[in-house]
Amino acid sequence: MSITTVTSASNATLKRLRSLREKKYRRAEGLFLAEGLRICTEALDAGWVPRVLLFAQGKGDHPLVRRLAHATLAGGGQVVETTPDLLSGVTGKDNPQAVAAAYHPRTVTLDELVPGPRTLVAERLRDPGNLGTLLRACDATGTGALILLDDSADPTSVEAVRASMGAFFTVPCVQATTAELLAWKVRHGAVLTGAALDARAVDYRQARYQPPALLMVGNEAQGLPDALMAECDQLVIMPMRGKADSLNVAMAGTLLLYQALHWQEAG
Amino acid sequence: MSITTVTSASNATLKRLRSLREKKYRRAEGLFLAEGLRICTEALDAGWVPRVLLFAQGKGDHPLVRRLAHATLAGGGQVVETTPDLLSGVTGKDNPQAVAAAYHPRTVTLDELVPGPRTLVAERLRDPGNLGTLLRACDATGTGALILLDDSADPTSVEAVRASMGAFFTVPCVQATTAELLAWKVRHGAVLTGAALDARAVDYRQARYQPPALLMVGNEAQGLPDALMAECDQLVIMPMRGKADSLNVAMAGTLLLYQALHWQEAG
Repeated sequence: MSITTVTSASNATLKRLRSLREKKYRRAEGLFLAEGLRICTEALDAGWVPRVLLFAQGKGDHPLVRRLAHATLAGGGQVVETTPDLLSGVTGKDNPQAVAAAYHPRTVTLDELVPGPRTLVAERLRDPGNLGTLLRACDATGTGALILLDDSADPTSVEAVRASMGAFFTVPCVQATTAELLAWKVRHGAVLTGAALDARAVDYRQARYQPPALLMVGNEAQGLPDALMAECDQLVIMPMRGKADSLNVAMAGTLLLYQALHWQEAG
Repeated sequence: MSITTVTSASNATLKRLRSLREKKYRRAEGLFLAEGLRICTEALDAGWVPRVLLFAQGKGDHPLVRRLAHATLAGGGQVVETTPDLLSGVTGKDNPQAVAAAYHPRTVTLDELVPGPRTLVAERLRDPGNLGTLLRACDATGTGALILLDDSADPTSVEAVRASMGAFFTVPCVQATTAELLAWKVRHGAVLTGAALDARAVDYRQARYQPPALLMVGNEAQGLPDALMAECDQLVIMPMRGKADSLNVAMAGTLLLYQALHWQEAG
């Protein structure tokens, strides 16, 4: 086992990892970051081996750190021990983590994706925290995949991976255009349900969610565009009993995924 | 109308407002921050008049900015025009806002609070974003108040107010100890439901939510402590169909509040 120790912020590996907080460097390097012993271990359990593993000084004897280090080296990756401060500096998170790791992304295309009973679709999602939370909701509800339409946030950003609490590694995330989604929907005979603040929308608990169900939420500020609403087989709305007119997209998505799960499980 | 124009970051008012991002200065000044024309206008509609209103150069003629400025001055507050960059520097948010404002907090005590049909309780909530999202869920479901137990995040932090999307100004937020909550619960004959990953918990859709219902979620990492679970009239759990064992607390709270709303509305 060969483990490097780095205690200088100007070290080339650390600089390279820090750069992964920006999308253009993630693209250029073909790497993205995750942090935290629990998440990196879940990733390993799901078959994701780090290309670079960073661990904090003093954590090298932890059995899960040793397991991650072993897997990284066995896979031809690099293992670096560093100070807790430098490790926090890589992910930009204040509270100290035992490990951070860089992974090669995997690209799943819509052509490769077969719809399960439930698939989430998000259109022009802007906030990486919402994206991660929706991945976590997909995992919780056994929803097979998240399809990101058009110009959505990057699911490999450190914020999205963090908010997903590891679901990024178990729920496939597919990028597609609206046109590609609509063709794929027809090909698979899927039923498209859109969450929308629209006069045509029915209460989400009155709707039917026959599989394969595509459950769609729209952009944080604008919701779904008219053209996409027109393609939906049904529009649903959550009751709003307060001053605001809309829910956070992650909350609306979670309610919709649970309702579809409950409807399908009730048979 | 007297409006000051400030273009220097070292201006005393701007420095004072920037300091409000830290809790100790919010305490010392008796002020907290909100940002965005929509949220500040909703706050005004709910009776909250800024002590200090900042608006970005070029936005002074917007009718809603004029209305806010007028109300601020009429209430004896201060109105400051500044550059978009300096305004962003106050709230720490990248995307430019037309306005930011500082308000006096209002303290509601548990003794003053009468339970409505549904009240949310959160125990040792750590993340201000989750706190804000839960306030938004309270608003959406017509839940009367949020009770924060023990050492929870500060609801007047700029992150919490931002995530609440204005619900901070319409949903009372009460700080209390666990002992105070339990005494208040008995006094009002309220029924306490805890969301918990526990063998005694029933599916949240099988539970009953008689008013006045207290709906409780626990700390992000640890959930509810055993002693508090033991005080619950019932424990409920959301089905988990994936790899992870728990939902984000804001998602669990949203599901619980909607389920209680649906149960009570079904009568």
